[in-house]
Amino acid sequence: MPGQPEWRFDPLTGRRVLISPDRADRPRAVGPACPFCEGHESETPPEVLAYRPPGSGPNGPGWRVRVVPNRYAAVRMDIGEPGASATGANRQRAFATAGTPVADAPGSPGLGVAEVFVESPHHETAFRNLSRAQATDVVRAWRNRLRFWRDDGRLAFAQVFKNEGPAAGASVEHCHSQLIGIPFVPPAVENELRRVASIRCPYCDADARVGPTFVTDTEHFVAVCPVAPRLPGETWVLPKEHIAAFETVTDDRAAELAGILFDVLGRIDRVFARPDYNLIVRSAPFRYEGNWHWRVEILPRVTTTAGWEWGTGLLINTMFPEEAARLLRDAGRNE
Amino acid sequence: MPGQPEWRFDPLTGRRVLISPDRADRPRAVGPACPFCEGHESETPPEVLAYRPPGSGPNGPGWRVRVVPNRYAAVRMDIGEPGASATGANRQRAFATAGTPVADAPGSPGLGVAEVFVESPHHETAFRNLSRAQATDVVRAWRNRLRFWRDDGRLAFAQVFKNEGPAAGASVEHCHSQLIGIPFVPPAVENELRRVASIRCPYCDADARVGPTFVTDTEHFVAVCPVAPRLPGETWVLPKEHIAAFETVTDDRAAELAGILFDVLGRIDRVFARPDYNLIVRSAPFRYEGNWHWRVEILPRVTTTAGWEWGTGLLINTMFPEEAARLLRDAGRNE
Repeated sequence: MPGQPEWRFDPLTGRRVLISPDRADRPRAVGPACPFCEGHESETPPEVLAYRPPGSGPNGPGWRVRVVPNRYAAVRMDIGEPGASATGANRQRAFATAGTPVADAPGSPGLGVAEVFVESPHHETAFRNLSRAQATDVVRAWRNRLRFWRDDGRLAFAQVFKNEGPAAGASVEHCHSQLIGIPFVPPAVENELRRVASIRCPYCDADARVGPTFVTDTEHFVAVCPVAPRLPGETWVLPKEHIAAFETVTDDRAAELAGILFDVLGRIDRVFARPDYNLIVRSAPFRYEGNWHWRVEILPRVTTTAGWEWGTGLLINTMFPEEAARLLRDAGRNE
Repeated sequence: MPGQPEWRFDPLTGRRVLISPDRADRPRAVGPACPFCEGHESETPPEVLAYRPPGSGPNGPGWRVRVVPNRYAAVRMDIGEPGASATGANRQRAFATAGTPVADAPGSPGLGVAEVFVESPHHETAFRNLSRAQATDVVRAWRNRLRFWRDDGRLAFAQVFKNEGPAAGASVEHCHSQLIGIPFVPPAVENELRRVASIRCPYCDADARVGPTFVTDTEHFVAVCPVAPRLPGETWVLPKEHIAAFETVTDDRAAELAGILFDVLGRIDRVFARPDYNLIVRSAPFRYEGNWHWRVEILPRVTTTAGWEWGTGLLINTMFPEEAARLLRDAGRNE
């Protein structure tokens, strides 16, 4: 039952939900028929970025990391073109007011971009099994696509994220991550922007670097368990400097970040028996000039949200962050 | 690693999380060793309510529905007694200011109650397989325990909910529901109280009764798909009258409600192939005098939240409510 994606707004709860019927048609791709494997480039939309050796042409083999539009996109840029009646007007409004919650309308078109980062040419299913060089290319690709959409100017916010394993919502097993960009700032992010404006950043505090929630660090990054973790073993990786935009990461820092992500994911594997997980790049909205400390959030999906959480929004976690951090420290580095 | 439950508050995100280490120890009870089956009454804490024939004594066989404190409670009333140093002070504060968000403190004790409704003496795993009389007893027990905690006066809010199946977070397969009560109103509920004060109730609108999101109704109740559903097939059952407190349900209305819940759950089973689901009784906070329309929310867990949803709070649903309602209408009544 395909159809154009649409934001729906509930005036009672204040909840915004994106209804995206095309997503229901996406296949569960596993094994040899995988559309993300090298040699199957024609099964995805044409690439928008790829790291390839000189002389290798687009949309053929030879790439290391490849970024393509999501064929089963939750949001789309090709709807509501100017001139397409009411939808066109909505589109103009959406883009004209980027940064404001257009989704307050009862229904508005699901405008935006959805891209997939194919993280390896061969059928690897776990990010932690990539080479360090390969993972560094992935981090550089995240940065480059965020830069691209920031410079494009039509979107207000984009999030890069990774779902690894079925419990984390992955429908394709080939190692990949995603970017979704939208023309407004999500209320949860707006809420955080408001809060952070009035407090000292807790992650610039020395305590985050040496206290009981410290996990590990490198020269420029630190991994900590957040003060109110949503899931056992939730861990955040932050730059030691208070920097708002992930897009500012240099090539060198991308390599260092890939290294600490591998370290943290290895520890989580050992403590929580290789859980499925989500990884979220939490960067400031585009064109935001204020106070923010970007971070990568890692959420091991070791428990399931139930009726209490869906009803109240109050999550119940079975492990204190101090205990999780102790276990993750004790788990030691890889090898 | 047992320990006292504690609310943690993140000043950056404004997120409140309950850390409850005892929950990690709860068993996954299946099959013949089930502690909820008749004859195993000694394996649960003593009952706080049971429907039994005259002459049948407490905590032995003969009951139809039995309510017991949750042995693996996420929150507890027995922590922070007055006199127990800092925790005691926190407890006094928590109960003295019931209704205000005490959890704004970086850490505060996880005070509250957690009860389990054992919905059948025999090892039935699906609510829909209970008899109508049995389900009516369950609804009456929900009402009676909500009344009990409202009258107790120490709690500000309680939610009754049901997790059916592992995808919905159930750890025990024997048919049961739960009540959790806390001394403050969850922020998501407070937010809705604020919103509802300034709008006309969308569910009192004639459109909800006859429009494209209508599913089914009885004399006093109506089932509709909400305007911004979080999951495919999300359905709400509401009284036709604008009533704030679920506790006001009479015995007759309890029977009628059980009937429409069976009807809706049967339709969801047929359309979505017997999905696991959460059921949430969304009643007004205790001692709340304002505008509210209580409802029972049914959330079929047919998709999984992933990195986008955890990062932005914006859910992506693959089915429009009008389409879900059409399918549920077409699915017809049971038998």
